Amino acid sequence: MIHPSEQLAQLGQDFHRRGWALGTSGNFSAVIDRDPLRLAITASSLDKSRLSPDQILEVGADGTPVGTQQGKPSAETLLHIAIVRVAGAGAVLHTHSVWSTILSDYHLGHGGFFIEGYEMLKGLEGVRTHEHREWIPILENSQDMPSLALETERMLKENPAIHGFLIRRHGMYTWGKDLAEAARHVEILEFLLESVGRRQMMEPQY
Amino acid sequence: MIHPSEQLAQLGQDFHRRGWALGTSGNFSAVIDRDPLRLAITASSLDKSRLSPDQILEVGADGTPVGTQQGKPSAETLLHIAIVRVAGAGAVLHTHSVWSTILSDYHLGHGGFFIEGYEMLKGLEGVRTHEHREWIPILENSQDMPSLALETERMLKENPAIHGFLIRRHGMYTWGKDLAEAARHVEILEFLLESVGRRQMMEPQY
Amino acid sequence: MIHPSEQLAQLGQDFHRRGWALGTSGNFSAVIDRDPLRLAITASSLDKSRLSPDQILEVGADGTPVGTQQGKPSAETLLHIAIVRVAGAGAVLHTHSVWSTILSDYHLGHGGFFIEGYEMLKGLEGVRTHEHREWIPILENSQDMPSLALETERMLKENPAIHGFLIRRHGMYTWGKDLAEAARHVEILEFLLESVGRRQMMEPQY
Amino acid sequence: MIHPSEQLAQLGQDFHRRGWALGTSGNFSAVIDRDPLRLAITASSLDKSRLSPDQILEVGADGTPVGTQQGKPSAETLLHIAIVRVAGAGAVLHTHSVWSTILSDYHLGHGGFFIEGYEMLKGLEGVRTHEHREWIPILENSQDMPSLALETERMLKENPAIHGFLIRRHGMYTWGKDLAEAARHVEILEFLLESVGRRQMMEPQY
Repeated sequence: MIHPSEQLAQLGQDFHRRGWALGTSGNFSAVIDRDPLRLAITASSLDKSRLSPDQILEVGADGTPVGTQQGKPSAETLLHIAIVRVAGAGAVLHTHSVWSTILSDYHLGHGGFFIEGYEMLKGLEGVRTHEHREWIPILENSQDMPSLALETERMLKENPAIHGFLIRRHGMYTWGKDLAEAARHVEILEFLLESVGRRQMMEPQY
Repeated sequence: MIHPSEQLAQLGQDFHRRGWALGTSGNFSAVIDRDPLRLAITASSLDKSRLSPDQILEVGADGTPVGTQQGKPSAETLLHIAIVRVAGAGAVLHTHSVWSTILSDYHLGHGGFFIEGYEMLKGLEGVRTHEHREWIPILENSQDMPSLALETERMLKENPAIHGFLIRRHGMYTWGKDLAEAARHVEILEFLLESVGRRQMMEPQY
Repeated sequence: MIHPSEQLAQLGQDFHRRGWALGTSGNFSAVIDRDPLRLAITASSLDKSRLSPDQILEVGADGTPVGTQQGKPSAETLLHIAIVRVAGAGAVLHTHSVWSTILSDYHLGHGGFFIEGYEMLKGLEGVRTHEHREWIPILENSQDMPSLALETERMLKENPAIHGFLIRRHGMYTWGKDLAEAARHVEILEFLLESVGRRQMMEPQY
Repeated sequence: MIHPSEQLAQLGQDFHRRGWALGTSGNFSAVIDRDPLRLAITASSLDKSRLSPDQILEVGADGTPVGTQQGKPSAETLLHIAIVRVAGAGAVLHTHSVWSTILSDYHLGHGGFFIEGYEMLKGLEGVRTHEHREWIPILENSQDMPSLALETERMLKENPAIHGFLIRRHGMYTWGKDLAEAARHVEILEFLLESVGRRQMMEPQY
């Protein structure tokens, strides 16, 4: 079995190549232990094109580092922990594509938007038909992480069926029971966001 | 000669890389024997970026597995068999690009749309001039596969000259006498769909 | 020195990867001798993703094969020869991108369009300032190659300063004194066509 | 430590692959010594897909070559030197993407435009919050390099907080304390320009 640090580093490089984690954007985590919680998570402010296993840290339930690895955990560690706790996720991926960025801005006024009728929705865990109606909530962006983490918890409790959400002009969060499922959700949701975005540009009244 | 399982696995990886088979979308088949029918087809729900020859199954004329390979054949096996039988295809490829997805939605109301006047049409088998008028039918999507397969048969009998069709918000089916021809049809049709889609965004009244 | 067949084969694979020669589209040539004319040119109807040096043929001034290589020269050989003779080109490249395809349709009514004010124009041979005004003629498409070749000759004589032209819904022709210059012209013109196309979609009255 | 010539050559190849330095466009420099100034900079008119370390020259404070390397320094050397002097940059990168080209044209009338509210802005040196408001000045293009360099100096002095600027229909300049920071600024700004451009195409009144 490949160690989560290896997997997270490979994922980061792949997402950078695909334009989903440019600059120092994006952060990725995987649960190592649940009780007490130990989470492998990318260190802060890294160039994802060169992400290496020794840049993955371990943090505890309060988001502070445990173990011997040096470095500062991602500023958004508290959001990852909120998602692990409330949604029961085994892995959390935050990407930052062009399409998630502009749709999170366009639809902010309604607090989110629906994606429905797309076959690709069946790639989301538990979805069996294209007739599924997926709500994509949008949170206003903030640099106050404890407050954004609380807002995330509240939103996840109100929307237990969702598979991901956007932060305004800040990209997407999705998750899964393990890294493979979470990575599949990134591909699925990025495809759907691009499709919805281009569809709407084809017919503005759409 | 490369075994069809090898070819289908390589094709799947290539199509994933090009954005035509993301998540677990897309399924691909090639006829091994016609009488009785034996079809090599991708197993269900696979990540196409890592498609390997042992994930290609063999099924008979009723879509159930024959041979020793384990796994569940693609849910859309019956559509592949319908196309093999009615269109006489030697290989069937179902891709799921952004452009096929949004055009299948935009033009549903007319049951399809024409692509005409494009030189690239000459890449479709039997087409000798850009003046060719290619009808791209669109079927409504469904999770009832036997019923969607019957609908596909009916549509193929009514449109014997077509080279592919779309399913609403669900991507494209195309085929050929062998895998090389079917793969060329994917490239040709994806190019034409992107061209038609962008052309229409350039001039909405188009 | 690399043989022109090697260079043309590498170019074809690179252009396929970049979406400029999908399906069997695109054809490429280089002058081997001027008197009498001998031209290395891609054979007809090839998959450019696997273009190999033995798929490059030699033809004489009338477009018929000379030498021992087997195969049928590209259907558009006469256009290449017209460009070699009238424009004095040492290499001719015909690509078939989405942007050249849709702009050749959009602007047909005016017989072409100007590209001006772009710094990138300076990558075209002999252009020294962005204030240059490049005319991009558009010819109506035809399957009658001798007639299309005559039309090309006439157009080149009327427009001796151009670096390339479009055929309606059929892509672009450009050329250079050698393959390196012609390939640079492809990159420059494809960039400019995409820029002009997106600019105009940003502001339709543009 | 890798020599700046190696780093600049790798950067050029990477930027070509990503569509930011096509044809012979783009030029890149890094400070080797500050007093007296010695700058490593790409030679003029090169194909960036094959940029090699021996195509990087050294110039002095007046932009003329020093050292033994042959070749003519980039025509835009004086702009690089102006940015090194006024902004205190350790590396300067000029890229030429489609999005920077068309936005530099669209917004010329206002002398530039603001990018604000995007999380990705935090990838720019010194920016701590998405609430940052980044001004992107646009200069009119010119072939008179001494005059364009003076104009650049004036503009940099008036706008000491900026991280980059555009030249009309000519792409982007950005910089950093070293090559790694400058390269990150390219990724960040290209992402933001594409996001702003597509956002505005989604909603023209935006």
